[in-house]
Amino acid sequence: MGTAENSSGAGNARAAAGVSDVMVSGRVGVGWRERYCEVRSLTEEMAAVLSAEDQTVQSMPDVSPTKWHRAHTSWFFEEFVLGPHAPGYEAADPAYRYLFNSYYEAVGPRHPRPARGLLSRPGIEEVASYRRQVDAAMLDLLMTPIADEAAALVELGLHHEQQHQELLLMDIKHVLSQNPLRPVYRVQRDTTPAAKPGPTPWIDDPGGLIEMGHDAVGFAFDNETPRHAVHLGPYALASRPVTCGEWESFVDDGGYQRPELWLSDGWAAVMANAWEAPLYWRRAEDGWVVFTLGGERPVRAAEPVCHVSLYEADAYARWAGARLPLEAEWEHLVRADQPRADRFDLDDLHPRPVDGTSLGASVGEVWEWTASPYVAYPGFRPAPGAVGEYNGKFMINQQVLRGGACVTPPGHLRPTYRNFFPPSARWPFTGLRLAKDLP
Amino acid sequence: MGTAENSSGAGNARAAAGVSDVMVSGRVGVGWRERYCEVRSLTEEMAAVLSAEDQTVQSMPDVSPTKWHRAHTSWFFEEFVLGPHAPGYEAADPAYRYLFNSYYEAVGPRHPRPARGLLSRPGIEEVASYRRQVDAAMLDLLMTPIADEAAALVELGLHHEQQHQELLLMDIKHVLSQNPLRPVYRVQRDTTPAAKPGPTPWIDDPGGLIEMGHDAVGFAFDNETPRHAVHLGPYALASRPVTCGEWESFVDDGGYQRPELWLSDGWAAVMANAWEAPLYWRRAEDGWVVFTLGGERPVRAAEPVCHVSLYEADAYARWAGARLPLEAEWEHLVRADQPRADRFDLDDLHPRPVDGTSLGASVGEVWEWTASPYVAYPGFRPAPGAVGEYNGKFMINQQVLRGGACVTPPGHLRPTYRNFFPPSARWPFTGLRLAKDLP
Amino acid sequence: MGTAENSSGAGNARAAAGVSDVMVSGRVGVGWRERYCEVRSLTEEMAAVLSAEDQTVQSMPDVSPTKWHRAHTSWFFEEFVLGPHAPGYEAADPAYRYLFNSYYEAVGPRHPRPARGLLSRPGIEEVASYRRQVDAAMLDLLMTPIADEAAALVELGLHHEQQHQELLLMDIKHVLSQNPLRPVYRVQRDTTPAAKPGPTPWIDDPGGLIEMGHDAVGFAFDNETPRHAVHLGPYALASRPVTCGEWESFVDDGGYQRPELWLSDGWAAVMANAWEAPLYWRRAEDGWVVFTLGGERPVRAAEPVCHVSLYEADAYARWAGARLPLEAEWEHLVRADQPRADRFDLDDLHPRPVDGTSLGASVGEVWEWTASPYVAYPGFRPAPGAVGEYNGKFMINQQVLRGGACVTPPGHLRPTYRNFFPPSARWPFTGLRLAKDLP
Amino acid sequence: MGTAENSSGAGNARAAAGVSDVMVSGRVGVGWRERYCEVRSLTEEMAAVLSAEDQTVQSMPDVSPTKWHRAHTSWFFEEFVLGPHAPGYEAADPAYRYLFNSYYEAVGPRHPRPARGLLSRPGIEEVASYRRQVDAAMLDLLMTPIADEAAALVELGLHHEQQHQELLLMDIKHVLSQNPLRPVYRVQRDTTPAAKPGPTPWIDDPGGLIEMGHDAVGFAFDNETPRHAVHLGPYALASRPVTCGEWESFVDDGGYQRPELWLSDGWAAVMANAWEAPLYWRRAEDGWVVFTLGGERPVRAAEPVCHVSLYEADAYARWAGARLPLEAEWEHLVRADQPRADRFDLDDLHPRPVDGTSLGASVGEVWEWTASPYVAYPGFRPAPGAVGEYNGKFMINQQVLRGGACVTPPGHLRPTYRNFFPPSARWPFTGLRLAKDLP
Repeated sequence: MGTAENSSGAGNARAAAGVSDVMVSGRVGVGWRERYCEVRSLTEEMAAVLSAEDQTVQSMPDVSPTKWHRAHTSWFFEEFVLGPHAPGYEAADPAYRYLFNSYYEAVGPRHPRPARGLLSRPGIEEVASYRRQVDAAMLDLLMTPIADEAAALVELGLHHEQQHQELLLMDIKHVLSQNPLRPVYRVQRDTTPAAKPGPTPWIDDPGGLIEMGHDAVGFAFDNETPRHAVHLGPYALASRPVTCGEWESFVDDGGYQRPELWLSDGWAAVMANAWEAPLYWRRAEDGWVVFTLGGERPVRAAEPVCHVSLYEADAYARWAGARLPLEAEWEHLVRADQPRADRFDLDDLHPRPVDGTSLGASVGEVWEWTASPYVAYPGFRPAPGAVGEYNGKFMINQQVLRGGACVTPPGHLRPTYRNFFPPSARWPFTGLRLAKDLP
Repeated sequence: MGTAENSSGAGNARAAAGVSDVMVSGRVGVGWRERYCEVRSLTEEMAAVLSAEDQTVQSMPDVSPTKWHRAHTSWFFEEFVLGPHAPGYEAADPAYRYLFNSYYEAVGPRHPRPARGLLSRPGIEEVASYRRQVDAAMLDLLMTPIADEAAALVELGLHHEQQHQELLLMDIKHVLSQNPLRPVYRVQRDTTPAAKPGPTPWIDDPGGLIEMGHDAVGFAFDNETPRHAVHLGPYALASRPVTCGEWESFVDDGGYQRPELWLSDGWAAVMANAWEAPLYWRRAEDGWVVFTLGGERPVRAAEPVCHVSLYEADAYARWAGARLPLEAEWEHLVRADQPRADRFDLDDLHPRPVDGTSLGASVGEVWEWTASPYVAYPGFRPAPGAVGEYNGKFMINQQVLRGGACVTPPGHLRPTYRNFFPPSARWPFTGLRLAKDLP
Repeated sequence: MGTAENSSGAGNARAAAGVSDVMVSGRVGVGWRERYCEVRSLTEEMAAVLSAEDQTVQSMPDVSPTKWHRAHTSWFFEEFVLGPHAPGYEAADPAYRYLFNSYYEAVGPRHPRPARGLLSRPGIEEVASYRRQVDAAMLDLLMTPIADEAAALVELGLHHEQQHQELLLMDIKHVLSQNPLRPVYRVQRDTTPAAKPGPTPWIDDPGGLIEMGHDAVGFAFDNETPRHAVHLGPYALASRPVTCGEWESFVDDGGYQRPELWLSDGWAAVMANAWEAPLYWRRAEDGWVVFTLGGERPVRAAEPVCHVSLYEADAYARWAGARLPLEAEWEHLVRADQPRADRFDLDDLHPRPVDGTSLGASVGEVWEWTASPYVAYPGFRPAPGAVGEYNGKFMINQQVLRGGACVTPPGHLRPTYRNFFPPSARWPFTGLRLAKDLP
Repeated sequence: MGTAENSSGAGNARAAAGVSDVMVSGRVGVGWRERYCEVRSLTEEMAAVLSAEDQTVQSMPDVSPTKWHRAHTSWFFEEFVLGPHAPGYEAADPAYRYLFNSYYEAVGPRHPRPARGLLSRPGIEEVASYRRQVDAAMLDLLMTPIADEAAALVELGLHHEQQHQELLLMDIKHVLSQNPLRPVYRVQRDTTPAAKPGPTPWIDDPGGLIEMGHDAVGFAFDNETPRHAVHLGPYALASRPVTCGEWESFVDDGGYQRPELWLSDGWAAVMANAWEAPLYWRRAEDGWVVFTLGGERPVRAAEPVCHVSLYEADAYARWAGARLPLEAEWEHLVRADQPRADRFDLDDLHPRPVDGTSLGASVGEVWEWTASPYVAYPGFRPAPGAVGEYNGKFMINQQVLRGGACVTPPGHLRPTYRNFFPPSARWPFTGLRLAKDLP
């Protein structure tokens, strides 16, 4: 995902990995077409409650308008699947190649990212019609056997669209948050606030020479490969993410006023942006409130803290006498305790309290910042062709996040999944889990 | 008008000037209500061909979204007329006071101008409903006699709305121009290109001690008053504005490459922005094309040049061995030769060639930059109250324009009318007319 | 003077005006050479107390390093006098043409203004040697009769150097003010603070058709010409500038917190820069202190306020129920009451209290902002040739100041003298005098 | 070193490591005082050829003036050694605590980094006198036994000063390069250009579980510790850095025009800054020339390329079908082949061709960018106290460089030494060495 909507050179990954179950089981059959329809229709369901005006606004350069996400994900199928693999397919509009290319230099020039919000046209009706045209052609294509390479690109396109589903939710949250009317995206299910949890239990691991990276069964993005050895010292991970209640203690203890807790660039960000709490928190008369996709409401102590930058996560960890985990540490422990089933729910798009009794049960509400910069695994090779631009070219100035969030669509994650964002990013659903060295 | 949508302080102007014909003829009667409906419905007609998406975009800080113009002009009536003068009137939404205040510091804080395009809500339906509520209350109010002060504010509100009608057209033109699809606002009437005109005849005036400023009969903005004496030397004005054909000669002669022709700040603007022709001109294979509200089409030599900054106008005049007129010179000669009737036409929103046989007939296609900075007339006093913030506070760093443009709504202009913009502005419909000293 | 060190176009002025007394009395004789030596040695005297480090620093783009002023004024004589008029003269260093050209586009490319402080070389010794070479050649040239055109350029060069003398003092004050050590440029003569003055007497004038501009006897810059008629209403000027004591009342009355007192751009500047008092004022424990060329010391109530922008001057005037004078009003009254003899004194470089009994006696401590934008007089023509770039090209976005300041060198001023700066400038020695309309 | 002049936290390192040889051998005796004098006098020797003007200029925010380096390194001894450990020592000037603190938040507020060039005072004479005062007190202190903690700080202070010696040279090179006169810092020894070398031999390593980090004998910065295990795959390193001749091939092959070769942020930097060759290269009539501390001269094919950013190094490696080394790979191989003795020479401050027959012999002309972001080693703990701010707080947004350059002072390096700069930095003496995976 990342700022750059990186999605991935599955070509190479797949070369090593074989194809995923669905693909193996038919590659033409009902499975594929159903999966395609499922993913595509979730995007439309997400957008359906938004007006034409909502879908047009871009609130900062990192954010894209909803209708742009809807069009760009369709362009992906048009550009990489239909164009090369559907004989006779005619592009909906030649200008769309320029307007809806995100960052693929190899494909040609593109509309500048910060100017996506200047485009009133095509409007949402035209975008819907574009999606329908692409869907019809895709479903047609999927009626008959397709080449491995094309199949890999279809699968990649679906994972790509899922990434944009999460971006769509992150982005519209940011858009709506700019409005003093504090609009509601969608009314959220009401839940009873959980009690403030007790101290976090730690889960120990002796480390040693372990393996990490994708094991070549099923789909993975190229940046998860190859699987390789890493040496770890003994360490422990907290059994749940840091909560809002804990974060309030950090705030109350002057966390945002003490330079000694911060990385140098982090402290500069605090000063420059006057940060004093996570993004979307606001100090109201009766305490902190938080803006959610269901509107503004009081901060709840038991919920995982969300929308903090790496700088804040790192400062918190230092304050707490701990540190952030390495991605290898995280993957090693989590792989042993498979995360629970998908919790995605359009009526529950805010992190909810987790049960910290098992590691797996505590993952999936917020992305967890790690101490690992986003770099290539040893032996990494990006996929050939334009889709090779997805991941490799962003391997600088970004930090890895692990785990997945309440807004990550169903079926999208794996324990080896590597998300990444710049250390200053706060609009993704980002939280943290503590780690520490063991003697 | 100006960047700041200044409109006005008519209170003071009217104190000196009496009330306009319409008001004199009734102040309560059919005339008033009809005038109100006429003006208000023209705004809606302008917006009607625009989609919700079109009406939401803000393409630069100086531009406002169409739906913002529609709401702000309604807010003006609510804030200054209905609030104080319609007993029992209840504001549509308290948040609108904040969202739709343009720059009235006295009224309270306001949504930042560059962030108007971040507001997806209220959407166009809610804005339409807001307008209907204000209209109903206004028409109700106008059924019965109202105080002079209220009447003056109604009249001011209508002139204010007319200013925003022109801004709406300027702004949507800029919005659409950012789109590589080059969208059409409204198909424009097709006309046969006129022949390239011959050399411009000059109209001489001996100057001397003349009077300028509004003569206190009918409505005027406060910045047109008081009428006062000015001494002029002998001078001449061109009988028509500079044309596109003439401008092409300037371009071809290296006009944009020769620093000696430019004011120092102007040359800096040329360098910084890589200007090489008027805004909306583009060099195509077969020559210059221009983006209009009816789409892109070839530049026509006989049309007045439009969308040039003061810097460009000034450089052109120097190149032509002439200068820009003083606003006093302009007003003095034009007053003697009343401009023709309104030419406003939604199907003809681009400057068309003028007949240069009389001064009056040559005015009204493009605003004409003058050599006069926008300053207070001797004895100027802004109106008391919040509406006094309209004009006076913008009297720095702006230059006066005279005449009116093809996008200026009917019934809005007077020979004493003073428009103003910063010298770098190019998105208004700005052109120029030459002047020279006589011996 | 102005940001741009505008100096001139005396060619044209002189064509109309004849030559100055000195020139008339000899053009070759003792008078010329003495005048040349006098002016050139004052520059060196100003620089002599500054270290090599002091002379190198540029504290903001508008400021030039002392050694740059010393070199640039020499370059002027080399470029415009010696090059064309001293046969066989060889330029000191070809690179100096590039390094020390300020803004003469016609002469060729030049070192960017904001980068003047990046040049450590030539150092002050090389600059001194450059000055000596130019002086030797100039004094040689002035031994024999020279052409009228050359004579005019010599005279212009001397006035140009005087302008840079004032800039040198303004600039080094700004440089030193950036240093927390609060260094002293030169110890200033100690004086007893004057008593706070009583209310300002007003000097009335009936206005009418008056004449303004230079009368063509003696030297003047081209922007002071031609003399021309202007019509004024009845008005009054304060008999002295606004004092620091009065300014403190303005501050205490919330002057910097009340948007209704300010021009729109002025209020934006207050907000953006957190202005709360004149430049160089600092709130100390016992009240306001001010940084001077003699170091920091308490603000004295009777002294004219200094280092305020036009925005502040304009806001103050509005607060005081008055306005700023037009430059025509100022010139008309001051011309009738010739200013006192020069007060320039290197040991007294801060505005001192004035005797307000006569207008003339109250002028010359601070430049006085006027309500007049800096525009061409009717019939103005810049001088031909490169020196024609001095004044005309700055006639936009600047405001006229009149009167002269305590740092203006002796013999430099005239009642028709027009200084100019952008409305936001605060580092010149700028104050204000009130004006008002009479019935 | 790094942008932030990070130096250290040796306290912790030393706790693990014991003290260095010199310290062990006496801690009070001749060795210490000689070492102190040696290091301090090299700084003065570097500055001696620079004028007061040269020593004052700051050419960009990352650069510090020479006299600032001289003062700051003295402040370090005053603040951390003399203040706490020399009873009765009185600070030279209380303001220096503020002016010459670089980034130690714990010590108090400090003069803003980008404003260092605005300080003309203290001048170079006062700085020299400051250095003399500190030296006298230090030499006095070193006459008698001092506590371990103080001894560690003295040693740290000397390594700190060495880092600033290299920064001084980097910075003055940048300062002088801004001057169109292309001034010479110091005439450099003339050498015969070497022949263009043949293809680079590769040095293979099987990888496996290796150890890296400082082994606790002698001095090291805290960021080099603790020693820890790392697993590497089989790899090879080039036996010499990339040369200018090879870089020219990259340029000629469109290296700076092909986005597919670049990291996304790198390509953005190329576009934004119009990079087309390394910093200090200029295309002259006869080919590329390069600005050196000895002036400008032709680029020589056999010399290691220098002054490239990480982005350029990474793009070059991709173009060459290779990659940058991990810091672990570099350290592992270089440790086995100890680098040659110091090559530092004030008359030879430009990278010279290396003999690629052994790895050790090829190191030390240019810093070598690695593929490793600058992060903490597992178990890293910064030193307690203010000196703990040296390294840890910069562990984000920076990349590790290894090896040392021709401007690194003698006795400063170790195979475990970690230098770091942001990926966009080009003014350090940065080059690269290729690496590749082995099957």
